[in-house]
Order: sequence, then C-alpha cells, then structure tokens
Amino acid sequence: MTISDTEQPTKPFQPFKKIVFPEGIVLESGKKLVPLEVAYETYGHLSPERDNAILICHALTGDQFVTGINPISNRLGWWNRMVGPDLPIDTKRYFVICMNVLGGCMGTTGPKSPRNPENKEELWGVNFPSITIGDMVNTQRMVIDHLGIQTLFAVIGGSMGGMLALEWSVRYPDRVYATIPIATSSFHSAQNIAFNEVGRQAIFSDPNWKDGYYWRYGVLPENGLAVARMMAHITYLSEEALNHKFGRRLQKNAAASSFPIFGEMFQVESYLHYQGSNFVRRFDANSYVTISRAMDWFDLSQAYNGNLVEAFAKVQSRFCVISFSSDWLFPTSRSRSIVQALNRVAANVSFVEIESAKGHDAFLLDEPDLDRTIRGFLSGIAEQRQLKSYAS
Amino acid sequence: MTISDTEQPTKPFQPFKKIVFPEGIVLESGKKLVPLEVAYETYGHLSPERDNAILICHALTGDQFVTGINPISNRLGWWNRMVGPDLPIDTKRYFVICMNVLGGCMGTTGPKSPRNPENKEELWGVNFPSITIGDMVNTQRMVIDHLGIQTLFAVIGGSMGGMLALEWSVRYPDRVYATIPIATSSFHSAQNIAFNEVGRQAIFSDPNWKDGYYWRYGVLPENGLAVARMMAHITYLSEEALNHKFGRRLQKNAAASSFPIFGEMFQVESYLHYQGSNFVRRFDANSYVTISRAMDWFDLSQAYNGNLVEAFAKVQSRFCVISFSSDWLFPTSRSRSIVQALNRVAANVSFVEIESAKGHDAFLLDEPDLDRTIRGFLSGIAEQRQLKSYAS
Repeated sequence: MTISDTEQPTKPFQPFKKIVFPEGIVLESGKKLVPLEVAYETYGHLSPERDNAILICHALTGDQFVTGINPISNRLGWWNRMVGPDLPIDTKRYFVICMNVLGGCMGTTGPKSPRNPENKEELWGVNFPSITIGDMVNTQRMVIDHLGIQTLFAVIGGSMGGMLALEWSVRYPDRVYATIPIATSSFHSAQNIAFNEVGRQAIFSDPNWKDGYYWRYGVLPENGLAVARMMAHITYLSEEALNHKFGRRLQKNAAASSFPIFGEMFQVESYLHYQGSNFVRRFDANSYVTISRAMDWFDLSQAYNGNLVEAFAKVQSRFCVISFSSDWLFPTSRSRSIVQALNRVAANVSFVEIESAKGHDAFLLDEPDLDRTIRGFLSGIAEQRQLKSYAS
Repeated sequence: MTISDTEQPTKPFQPFKKIVFPEGIVLESGKKLVPLEVAYETYGHLSPERDNAILICHALTGDQFVTGINPISNRLGWWNRMVGPDLPIDTKRYFVICMNVLGGCMGTTGPKSPRNPENKEELWGVNFPSITIGDMVNTQRMVIDHLGIQTLFAVIGGSMGGMLALEWSVRYPDRVYATIPIATSSFHSAQNIAFNEVGRQAIFSDPNWKDGYYWRYGVLPENGLAVARMMAHITYLSEEALNHKFGRRLQKNAAASSFPIFGEMFQVESYLHYQGSNFVRRFDANSYVTISRAMDWFDLSQAYNGNLVEAFAKVQSRFCVISFSSDWLFPTSRSRSIVQALNRVAANVSFVEIESAKGHDAFLLDEPDLDRTIRGFLSGIAEQRQLKSYAS
C-alpha cells in the first residue's frame, strides 16, 4: 500500500496532500478545533506488516516536504540528504511520513486557514486557538490511525521536531518502537523563551502586523518577521560557524576606509538579510507566533510535577539521543538530562554527542557522523525487530 | 586641583559638565566634526604630580555617571559598587575620570547634538559622521590633554569600554601606565556583528524611525529600539543566569492551563519588556546605531595587517586582562587571544578568568572576585609607581 497513491488529490492543482477530519480535535486547552486538516507527504512503501513506518517531525519553520522537490518552493526538500533510496533513512526499506504541524502554514489547519470552511475569506489569524506540542502530536496520531498504523517503527525529529518525538514516546508509549530526538530539549529554557519573545515583539512592532489582521489589508509584517528570523538564525549557528563562514569579511562594495554606518558592510549582514527576506515569502507571521509559543509552553515534566523521570516512567521505546557539541540553543547538557532521566527508568537508550562546529543547524547540514549514527541505529533496531522490508 | 570644581557650569541648570573644543576633531574617516563637546564627570582629586588619574570607559549604552547619583535618571551610577571612597577604584587615592563617548547621547557630541550650533533645531541625526573606537579614544585624549594629564595611571573598561582601553594602550603607548580590559575583545566577531545588525534592522523597521529623522516629527522609534535592547540584553546574560533568575516561572496572572499565545506569560518576558521600555526613555536610537557600528568596525589588528602581535608591538602599559567564564558575547577565548599576543611582545600582563555564572554583564554586577582583582592589581602598581596619593 502506498498511501500517497490512495490519497492523491483529484481536484485541479492542489499542492498539499491532506487528510480531513470533519470531527476536528479537542485541544489541551479544552477548546475544540473543527474541522482539522493535516497536510502530509509520504515516501517509500508501507510494508504488508505495517511495521516499517517512520514519522519525521519537522522543526519550527519546516514543512512536510522532507525530500525530493518541494512543489511550493521548487527547491529540494529540507532533509534531502538524509531521506531517500539508500540514504540513512532509506525509503527502499522504510515508509516515511512527514506532516505539516498543527498551527503551520503549509496546508495543515493553522492561523492561515479559514475560520469557517463556509467562508474562505475570513481566516483564523490571531484567533487561532493556542496549541501545544502535545496537540501537534495528537494531530499526528489521528493521521497515523487513519493510515492504519498501530506502531511507528521510529519517530525522528530535530529541534522542535525532537520535542514532538519525545512527546510521542511519553504520550503513546506502546505506539513507538524507537525515538530519535536530535538537537533538542525536554523543555524550553528561559533563554529559549527570551529569544522567542523578542522575535514575537519584532513582529508585533511592525505596522503591517495590524494586531494580527494583516491578511485583511493585503499586507504582511515583513520587516518584523524578517528581524525575528534573522535573530533566530543567529541562534541556529555556532559562533565558530559564523567566524568560519564570514569572519569579518566585507561586501565587495563596502567603503571600509570611511567606516560607513548604513548599508550592508559585512558579509554576515548580507547573509542575514537574505535569510530574513527569503523567510517572509514562505512563512506566515501568525503561524510563527503560534508555534513559537507552543515551544515556550513545552516542558515534558510539567504534567509530572516537574519530574522528568516520572514523565518517562512508562516509555517502551528505545532511544537514540543525539546532540551537537557546538549547539548553544539546545546544548548537549539538555540531551544529557534526557538520557539521565531515561537511564533512571532503565530505558534502552544510546547517546551520541557529535563533534561539530556547525551549531544547532548541524542536523540539517552535511554532517557525516549524523548520517552514520542514524543509519547505524535504524539498521540495528530493524534487525532486532526483524523488519521484512529491511531483510528483503 | 579638583577639575570638577574648576569646570562647574555657571549657567542655570545644566546637567552635563562639558569641555568644548571649538576647533573640533578630524575623524578616522577623514571627515571633520566641528565643534566637539565632551561631557564628563570626575571623582576624587588629581594629585600635584598628576599621576593618579584613572580613566574609566563606559560600555555601549553607558554614560559618564559612574558613581553617586546620576542627575538624569536620579539613580545610582552604573559602577557605584566599584568606584568610591575605599572601594576597589578608591576615589580617596585616585582621580577618576569618565566621559560620555563620542556619538553618545549624554552630552558629548553625537547624533542628538545640533548639526550647526547656530541652529539648535536641526540635529545631526543620521547625518552624524561615522565614527570608530579610535575616534572615541582620540576625543578622550583631547580631554586628558586639556586636564593637563600626561600619563594616565590606568585605563579601565568593560565590554566596549575594554575596546577603548585596548585602543588607548596601542594608540598612545607612552600615556597609559596600566590597562584593565574587562569582558572584551580585540575585534567584533561575525556573531557580534550579526546581533548588532539585527538590532539596527529592528530600529529601521519601526515606522517611527522615519529614515532617522524621527526627532523632526516628535516621535521615537520606541518599539524597534526596545526590540534591539531586549535582544542585546539576552546576550549580556548567561543561560545559567536566566535559568537561575527566571527559569520557567510564570507571571502571577498567566492562565497557564489554557497555554495563551499573547501577553506576558513567563517572568523572563516581563523582565525583558521592562529592560526594553526602560531603555528607550534614556537612549537615542541614532546614537545606538552609530555606536553599535563603531563596535562592528573595531579590529585592533586591522591597521597591522591583521596581526594582533604587531598591534601590541609598542605597548608600554602593564595589563590586567579579565574575563568571565560564562560570558558568551565576549568569551574568555577572546581575552586569551589578547593575552597571548601581549605575551609575544613580552608585555607585563596578568590574566584572570573569573568563575561566574552571570555572563557578560558580570562586570557590572556584584562579583567579589572582580573587586578583589581590580583592587589588588591597582594597589600593586600604585606601590610600584610609588603613587604619593596612594601612600598618604
């Protein structure tokens, strides 16, 4: 069975494959969101035993287009180098699923969706209900149910995607065989919240934000969103990576002898401006605000009196926890805390800190040690589980 | 001689003590800035030998009011705990001078000054010429000349103030007996520039920026400046300090059970908002842009083919280089590079990395090891130099 075949849209051009849940979903806040649509992509084939499904969870500004050509951007998928035939997450062996998260802006119900399906003009915008990482996972679970999959062979994700992976292992312990949380944390720290909040304030300060109703005026809070993105981007890279990539190198036209105040003087500025302006074309500001807040609320231990060991008490999954030595957004110490808590409940856990100068974004970049780690771990547990698709 | 007495303003209330240089100054860019006014404060008494003067250089958003009551804010001076009778920088023994830097907004000529003294209505604003750390030091040297001081007993500064101190030791090697650069760097790195640039973009994005002519419209780019300040403030604190101070603690009225998106939910957000709104009341946006750019251009080795050892070749000063273990804006590695280069020219240098969880701002905070280090170093060289004011 290839889900992507059975679910192909029949309407004229429709870039998003979606599953619609007319009954909607009850959120952790108690509010109900009706209907619920989830946009997703799949790669590879589900085995007859339905035991080879890998769910990949994307990061804050990611999407469901993991590999191949993203039809919206016409660029390669965000994990093209990791997912595909013979790649570490081998689509010849595994059935890979990725969904746009709840609150996103790539087809899944979010602030950019119509508030009432009868009236496509009126969007949710700032009235979209607040959501949590748990809500995102519940949404994914509905899709996994719909696809007829009882147990996911693995849930994998980096950064916010790692939060979702951890949440899966705790929330649905009997439905996850293995969990690979990468460059992530079991909670958002004061510094993480602080950076998110400054980004939101930059968006709110943009006159085109218009209290979140920008879509009514045909404008976008581009400048504010770009500032938020530029700042976040700094946190995604290590100081060393920035020094290596740009150092103090100047733009060609920088009149350095007169030390100008205005204009792009240093290459790192030009790079940031590009990151900012590129981002505002593809991402919705209300989605950014909504999802960044869901990350702020994330604390896996919260429902367990702040005790992470308690949170993991019922996990059945095996874990491969991965961090990067130069990641200062979610430093190795956070992964170590996760591993220590998992050890306390005698979970099956391996922990790899990858030496890398690339910073937090290393999980998206060319990092052969990451490839080897994921390939090795998946191969090991595929043999252990005697996956037919793997043996064949 | 007490300079502060001789230079007391005679006009009605005039909060800034100033020295006016009608001839102005030629900047490193080649442009001339006429006239030049420098606002300054002094504490203690200059010895008859004029050998006990300590110049304190403030940081990006600091001012000349080091200790006592700041008459503008009516709050204590920014280094009140370090400078005063019997304090580490002992005003019973030393004659302490602090000046508002060139480009500042506390009385020294800067973007907030009239462009033409005949017409007080027309300000420099964005037309203020670009300046460098070298220009700031040259301005200070003019004041030191004016005060009749040949050799400064010490130049001390943290963060940008440390850049000025280093620049003094290189630019005027025979006029500095000792240099104490604290939590600083010999250059602005790609990451430093990146954070500054995002701050500037936040300011430029504010509709009240009005291409820098906000003062003509009676408005201030408050939101943009607050965003810049909030972001910068995160870089001034360590992750550990933020965790310790705020962790994930909520505001009293935060309705955490419904995970709200908007409003101050976490205490760290409230703290940042306070830092932002407090700042915009006291600091000029054009000054912020101008000075932050001067920091970006700073690279002590630039004029020496990128060779820091060459830059230090002629220094005569002794150095006490101080860093803080948790400072990630100007990490210890930067201080170590300075020390290594000074060692290569056989300079008299001591280096102290202070164990502190407080981050970059530790130099402004209660850090007894810093007090001991500064007091000890100054006492040692005062004895060495046989300062009469010290012996008495």
